[in-house]
Order: sequence, then C-alpha cells, then structure tokens
Amino acid sequence: MSTEPRTILIVGGVAAGMKTASRLRRLDSQARITVIERGRNLSYGACALPYVIAEEIAELDEVRRTPNGTLRDETFFARVKGVEVLTGCEAVAIDRERQQLRVRHLAEEREEERHYDQLVLATGSRPIIPPLPGVDLEGVQPLKRVEDAAAILDRLQPGARAVIVGGGLIGLEMAEALRARQLEVRLLEMQPQVLSGILDADLAEQVHRALRRNGVDLHLGEALQAIEGEDGRAVRVRTVAGSYPAELVILALGVTPNVELARESGLEIGISGAIAVNEHLQTSDPAIYAAGDCVESRHLINGHPLYLPLGSTANKHGRVVADSLCARTTYFPGILGSLLVKVFDLNVGRTGFSEQQAREAGFDPVSILAPSPDRVHSMPSARPILTRLTVDRASRRLLGAQIVGPGEVAKRIDVVATALSFGAGLNRFAQLDLGYAPPFSGAMDPLHQAANALRNKLDGLADSLSSLQLRQRLDAGEEILLLDVRSPDEYADVRIPGATLLPLGRLRSETAELPNDRLIVPFCKISLRGYEATRILLAAGFEKVAYLEGGILGWPFELERGQG
Amino acid sequence: MSTEPRTILIVGGVAAGMKTASRLRRLDSQARITVIERGRNLSYGACALPYVIAEEIAELDEVRRTPNGTLRDETFFARVKGVEVLTGCEAVAIDRERQQLRVRHLAEEREEERHYDQLVLATGSRPIIPPLPGVDLEGVQPLKRVEDAAAILDRLQPGARAVIVGGGLIGLEMAEALRARQLEVRLLEMQPQVLSGILDADLAEQVHRALRRNGVDLHLGEALQAIEGEDGRAVRVRTVAGSYPAELVILALGVTPNVELARESGLEIGISGAIAVNEHLQTSDPAIYAAGDCVESRHLINGHPLYLPLGSTANKHGRVVADSLCARTTYFPGILGSLLVKVFDLNVGRTGFSEQQAREAGFDPVSILAPSPDRVHSMPSARPILTRLTVDRASRRLLGAQIVGPGEVAKRIDVVATALSFGAGLNRFAQLDLGYAPPFSGAMDPLHQAANALRNKLDGLADSLSSLQLRQRLDAGEEILLLDVRSPDEYADVRIPGATLLPLGRLRSETAELPNDRLIVPFCKISLRGYEATRILLAAGFEKVAYLEGGILGWPFELERGQG
Repeated sequence: MSTEPRTILIVGGVAAGMKTASRLRRLDSQARITVIERGRNLSYGACALPYVIAEEIAELDEVRRTPNGTLRDETFFARVKGVEVLTGCEAVAIDRERQQLRVRHLAEEREEERHYDQLVLATGSRPIIPPLPGVDLEGVQPLKRVEDAAAILDRLQPGARAVIVGGGLIGLEMAEALRARQLEVRLLEMQPQVLSGILDADLAEQVHRALRRNGVDLHLGEALQAIEGEDGRAVRVRTVAGSYPAELVILALGVTPNVELARESGLEIGISGAIAVNEHLQTSDPAIYAAGDCVESRHLINGHPLYLPLGSTANKHGRVVADSLCARTTYFPGILGSLLVKVFDLNVGRTGFSEQQAREAGFDPVSILAPSPDRVHSMPSARPILTRLTVDRASRRLLGAQIVGPGEVAKRIDVVATALSFGAGLNRFAQLDLGYAPPFSGAMDPLHQAANALRNKLDGLADSLSSLQLRQRLDAGEEILLLDVRSPDEYADVRIPGATLLPLGRLRSETAELPNDRLIVPFCKISLRGYEATRILLAAGFEKVAYLEGGILGWPFELERGQG
Repeated sequence: MSTEPRTILIVGGVAAGMKTASRLRRLDSQARITVIERGRNLSYGACALPYVIAEEIAELDEVRRTPNGTLRDETFFARVKGVEVLTGCEAVAIDRERQQLRVRHLAEEREEERHYDQLVLATGSRPIIPPLPGVDLEGVQPLKRVEDAAAILDRLQPGARAVIVGGGLIGLEMAEALRARQLEVRLLEMQPQVLSGILDADLAEQVHRALRRNGVDLHLGEALQAIEGEDGRAVRVRTVAGSYPAELVILALGVTPNVELARESGLEIGISGAIAVNEHLQTSDPAIYAAGDCVESRHLINGHPLYLPLGSTANKHGRVVADSLCARTTYFPGILGSLLVKVFDLNVGRTGFSEQQAREAGFDPVSILAPSPDRVHSMPSARPILTRLTVDRASRRLLGAQIVGPGEVAKRIDVVATALSFGAGLNRFAQLDLGYAPPFSGAMDPLHQAANALRNKLDGLADSLSSLQLRQRLDAGEEILLLDVRSPDEYADVRIPGATLLPLGRLRSETAELPNDRLIVPFCKISLRGYEATRILLAAGFEKVAYLEGGILGWPFELERGQG
C-alpha cells in the first residue's frame, strides 16, 4: 500500500490515554501514534496511591511498574508498545477545521502545531480545590498525582496532626492510611454522613463506627472555612464549629473533569460537566474521541448521564476508543456506579441505584436490609455483612445494592452488578447457582437471603421497617411494641432501649400476653427470627406486625450493653 | 373455615426436608406437618464436617446449631418452627392410591400407616461404597453424616496413617483436614487427575502441586483393590500398584441418590438415576414432591438432566417445594454445576461447561486460559489466579469457566455463574461494571482480562495454544520456536526447557533474527507480553505465530529452575 499512514494524537498519558495508545498500536502497526502528556509520569495507578501512603506498597514507583517490575516510562512505551510519548507537553488548542493540535513544550516554552487525522482526548480530571483561604499553603494536599503522594510522604511524622477534608472514597482511604502511619487524624465532612450519595444513612453509620473505632476524630456536618498558616505552611484548620491544629491537610472533595480544551474548541459538554460522547466514545466532532476521567458516562439502568470517573472505566474506554479508531464495532455500554472501598476492617460497596436514586429516576422502589454471615456461620472465618437490596415494586426488576461489613462484600457487589447488567428480576436472582463451600459462602448466600427476604416482603408475607422508618415513627410518638425475640443471654449482652424480651421459643405459646392495639415490631440479632416471629404473630391473628430489618446488627442508633 | 387442615409428610430431616417444613409452616399455619427422619441428627451442615475434622470448627455440634447457638433438635423445630419431627423413623413404602406412607419406628421395630395429603421426598443421598474386600472394616469411613465425622474424630492420632480414596471435593477437603491434624496422608485417585469432570488436566495439575507441596502423597491413576484388616480393623490398603499402611481409610467416591422408596412406589426416575421432577419439583405423582440430594437437576445451559447434589441446591429446593405446596408460582430454574473447593492455599472453582462438555452438548466452543493477579498487582495481598473462559464460537455466548489459584476465585466464579444465568455474550461480559478498588481487584478484573484475550482470539488478532495443545504438537515432533519474551532475570530464575530468550523490549528491533519457517510460540509469565509479541511478529510479516496461553504460570509440565 502506498498510502501515507495516518496520524493519531492522544492527549493524556495516564490510564485511558496509554491504554488507547497501546491497543491502537496492536491493532494498527502503521499509524503514527503520539501521546501528549503534561506531567512526567505515565500510566500510573492513581488508585493505589493511598496504599503507598499507608506503606502497604513499599515504593512510590511501584504504581508505575508493570507486574514484572518494568517502569512504564517513555522508553518502555517506545520499545515495548511502539508508541511515542511526549512528556512535559501541554495541548493548548485544537483547530478542528485544519485538524491541528497546538502543543506547548512546557520546559522550553515553545509551541508547535501538530496535524492529526484523529484525536483522542484523555485529559483526565483534577481535584476540586475549594475557594477558601489557605488552600495554597504548604502541607495542604489533594491526592491525585504521583507528585501529590510524594508531597504527602514528605510530611509524615508519627504524631503529626492531619485533617482530611471530605468523607468520600479518597478521604476514607486516606484516613486509614494516615492512621497506619500513626498520625492524629481528623476527618471533616460537610454532610451529616460520609459516603453521601453512595450509602444510605444507616449503613454510613457503620462506617462512622469503624472510623471512630480506629481512632479517627470524625466531624460530621462540619464545613471547612479556612486553613491558617505560619511561614507559608499549614498549622490550623478552621471550620464552622471549631479550630484544629494540622500540619497536613488532605483535600478530598472529589474531582472535576478537565474539559477546557474540549470546550474551547467547541466540542459538546454534557449536562454533568464532562465531555459528551456517543457509545463509541466519539465526541460531537467525528474525528475526535474522548476517554477516561474527562468523559460523561451513562447509567446502565436508565441511560441518564452522570459523571463518575474511575480507573476501571478508563481502561475499558481505552479499548473501545482504539477499536472505534480501527472500525471495529465495539461500544461502551455504560456504568452502574459500582464502587468499592475498604475502611479499616470494613468493606463497603454499592452498585446501581439506592432507593432514593431509584425514586428520582421514576421507579417505585422497595428495599430490604438483610444481615448475614458471609460464609457458613460455624466457620471461624465467618464475618457479617449487611446487604440492602432494592427492586422496582411492580416489575421486581433489580435496581441496586449497598453492602457493608467486615465480611466479603466485593463478591456480592460484583454479582449484583452482573445481574443488573442483564436486567435481572428478583425471583430469578434469588435462585442464582452461586458457588458454595464453607470457606467461601453459606448454603444460602447473603444475596439469596436478602433476595428471599425481599420476596417475602413483596409477597405480603411479612411487612418490615428499616431502622430509620422505625426511628421516625417512635420519634413521632407512636406507641410501638419493640419485641426482642432473642435469648435472655443475648438480651443481657446488648439490647435496643425500650425493647421487651420474649424469646422465639416461647412466642407460639405466649401470644395471648401481647397487646393487640399497637404495632408490634419483632427483631433479633439479624431479624431472621424477627421474620419467623412476624409469621407466628400474623398466624395468631395479630394484624399490625412489621419486623425490624437488620435487627441489632443493622441498628444505627443507641444500644444498651451489659446488665441494665 | 371448618375444613380439616391438610396433612403433609416430609421424608428426610437434613437440609431440603427441614427447609421445606420450616417454610411451609410460615406459609400455612394450619397444616399438619410431620418430618420423618431415619437418623438422630436434624438439619445439619454436612458440608462443614471436613472443617470439624480439621479442628477449624471446634465442636461437632456446631454443624447442628443456629448462628445464635441453639441446637436444631426436635424441641427446636417444635417450639420455634412449629414442625413435628419423628427421628429414628424410616419411611418404608408409599401407597400412592390411598395416600398412605408406611413408617417404621426403628427402635421399637413397629410400623404404622400415615395418611398424607401431600408427600415430600427429601431422602438425600448416601456415599458410594465400592464392592471391594475390607470396606466394612473398622477405620474405613465415608464422610456424610454427623456419625461419620464422630467416627473419624475418634481415630485421629498425630502420625497415624490415612489413605483417602477419591480425589473429588470431599477427598480433597479431607486431605487438607487430615494434614492439619498431622496425619500421614495418601490420596488415591483412579483417574489420571483429581477433580475429573470438574477441571481440565492442566488446571488439575495446579491442584496436584498444592497437594504435594502440603505433604499429601498423591497416587494418580491408581485404583483401590482391597482394604486389609487385623482384628476387624483396617491396617493396609492394596491398590493396582502397591500396598500402603493405613489405620484410617476415607472412602470419598461420591454419592448416590436414595431413590429406593420412590422407585418402589413407581415414581419416575430420571436418566441420571435420581428422582425426576418438573420445575415445581413435583414428581410423576402430583401429590408427591421431591427436594434435595435425591433429585435430578437440569443444566441451565441446555436443559439436560444431571445429578449434582449440593447443600445450596437443597436449600433452594426447600423453598420451591413449600411454595408449590401453597400454590405459589415459584419454580426451580436449574443449575450450572457451580462448585467451589479450597485445597490448602489454593482456591478452585468452576461453573457451566468445560470445553469438552460444551462440545458434547453440541456447541462449537473456544476457550482461553488467562492468568492475572486477583487485585492491583502492586498490593502485597495480590495473588494470582488462572482463569479459563469458554464461549460458543459463532454466538460468543458464555458457556463456562474454571478458575484456580491462591487468589480470590469464588468472586469470579459467582460473576460468571450470574452472567451464564442470563445468557451473557462475551462482548457484554467483557464490559461489566464490576467494583474496583486496589484491595479487591485490578482496574481490569481478571475476568475482563480473560474475556478480552478471548475476544482477541475470536477476532483473529492473535492465535494461541493451550499448554496441552502445545505439548501435543511438540510430542508429535513438530519444529516449534518457543520464544520467551521475559527479561533475562526472569529467564534465569525459571524457564520452559528448550525455550529461546528474546526480551520483549528487543523484539521490535530484532525480528529479522527469527526464523520464518516454523511456528513461533511467544510467552512470558502470564502471556500478556506473549500476546504483545504475537502482535509485533504478525505486523513484521510472520505468519505462523500463536502465543502460549497462561505462560509460565499456567505451564503444567516440567520447568527448569536457577542458572542452567
């Protein structure tokens, strides 16, 4: 063939950009592929940075190495991947008409025009820095780039005082990391809970407990006002409620997509503020694709646009863009908002919609909270998890899950994510032939337990209340009989204030003792016995019965302990 | 209502029987429900018994307790579940015309006739005992019932010699358990591999290595001929190849369904030898249902009957039967053959069809073997897993997976099982929005990696050979260049005999050195670099290139170690 090979420019050399370039070279050995990267570090795993801070990963360079130890630098990409990378270069303008990219060489302060046949924007995202006094002081750090991690590592002395601003994924991972390094850690969260928009309030309370148990001084509903410095270095943080010493301030308020280049060249920006693309990740200009953290996603459940950048999505994007550039018919289907985060000894995950998100999306959602051991309960390795499952009432279509606990959470999130991807209904979901062996799961998996509890609720076999619903009705002054159907020993150990003890084994013969004029709310440790009690009471003629979902394990409010 | 409550008899009180009874009582507070159980122990978790032997679970009774410590005995079922249980009672005959069950009270040696409106057979299964001399000696034990575990526990002295007959799930779990108790352990398997019919030969080799690494004396392709005794107690085991001292002989040859009662009363038995049922678990007699280990299953992929009893299936069955008995429209969809087993430090799982099973079922299967770390590779907790994924060539429908490794296997098996349940195609599967965070997974999950490798193969981007295919061609005398594209350090450490080293970083500039007259098989540790090398060689004009799937990690044959 005598045709000139095409030129493809890729702006951004971290996750999506380098993945696009590498795959593209494998698909097209002739194309001229050049990656333009503003920074010095390529193809690094930003998500692993908190684990470098925690010293779980011994060396910062590890996040830039391949599994066999090779540094992913310009030489690596040239020799192994056959891709040219220009670091320290910023793409400053796109002339879409002439298909030219203006590139500034930052060190030399010179600019050049480069022609492209196709252009890929993988410009990524940057941390949100609030417009508050002191955010530019030394010791005030977001965590996004390798350089950020290096700066934080430089300021770690045991006993140093850190304030983390923001209780999202990075904020929580950093709380664990800095505690591992023996810092004093305060976490400020403006909302009344951490992981707002990710976890419901009762499950977030489990995370609050884990943070406090591990020595994090948690300040909820407390907004940052200013960072105060001395000699240009941070020394204090001031909030609406107080003032705290801090030599290290981590700004973990989320990220915003880098869309300036796209916007200024007239490409369409989505309502989420990220670059709008079609399912082939093509922007409003057919010669320009976009991938990774700068791109707007669509939610798989209802197709609505949202901005939720993740390394996993960036990698998938890279493959789709490379395929699209080579006329291969792949597409990116969308995301479910699947998230995982480890917070000390707690594993946390969600996928799909919460009940509130489902309602906003026009569904009529019904949820259940079901606690279970994560494997056969007699195995000493068994740990509990709390599973909230949400479905659409009429169709019983699965809509989402939130799962929290010291037990195996990630597996169940992935199973729900997979089921959601194929539009699973609850009844079929409850019968999944999941793997079973005592070291891994119970004969009924926690997902089966939750699904069956939800089927029972939808089938009218047993009404139930979430802890928040019960709290509201108690606070409104409703007379409710809280019926603890556990054993006297369990009751003596820990109990919900005001609850009446009537062990399940006595319930069948003692129903006559119970009042018929008020709602009875049976519960136990995990509310399996609470459900059993509900069926017994309904059969005995009681009409107002609803068990407490999640039982003692899921109760986010005060508990009494020891002999009262 | 003045109608007489109906009578439901349930034969069998372990998993499916008690689950049916308990759910039935919750659905129908009036019915007379009686469970007939031949043994003394109810509702026990037989799958946990190896972990009692291993002393992971401290007490044998734990397998009969609820999570809150209550023993699930007759009193528990009467008081808590509202179900009558007759233990020590055998169901000996069904008079289907008169709807009568003849029940023998074993201790009193008396029989009675009991009327039923509906009958549930949950007669379970029993271990296969080969018709060989000595199987009835003391010290020769299957492991199925609580009594079996008690008998084994009685014979455990450190240093005692055990022979396990059969390399299936129970055999492998018992090998680990008995090694944990410091016994000398031999495992005899008639087939040339353990987990025959569950794992392909190359993956079974990983299990063989784990067994040997942990001190199990593994005898493959060696059938038991006799057990020799002294004073009625086992002392030796004789096989086709040798003779071994043994005070304890575990017979782990699988189970056979208890179908005598069903067969003698003329109920239809399926071709698998278990009781045939419809999707509501109704037998050929509409008044008789069957559940649990005595029931024939259908494979979800092609609807074919098979016998694969598991506690997880038994529990699902119980719910379906109870629902069916109460005119609730639930059904049991079938199984995927999902299995998990822990073998020392190795996790092993499979779901769906192997390539061979798929071919027998009329598909045109294509597979890939892809090794990956189970989470971000720089995390110190990362461990490898080997994933074999199988799809149908033309439709790309997912057909099955086998996964083995020290890393997280169960999660991936469950994801594949979920995808299989909804008829997932490979392309969609490769884009699942699975949860991602460094402690749990990589930005590309091992399943994404495997799916993408298989897409590349199907798309003609890179041909590949399994280790067994390569071995066959080498053994047939074909001249093949085995091209190791790892680093010199990696090569010095461990290598495939006869392989030529050419590090990937040099390949692009040195392709001219390679021969064009024979198949080139590039590989590395996990064959990601092997795939990259394949693309480079194809682009350089080489026509016969196919990388080695699984690389060094998946190579089941001889390896050279250290400086050669």
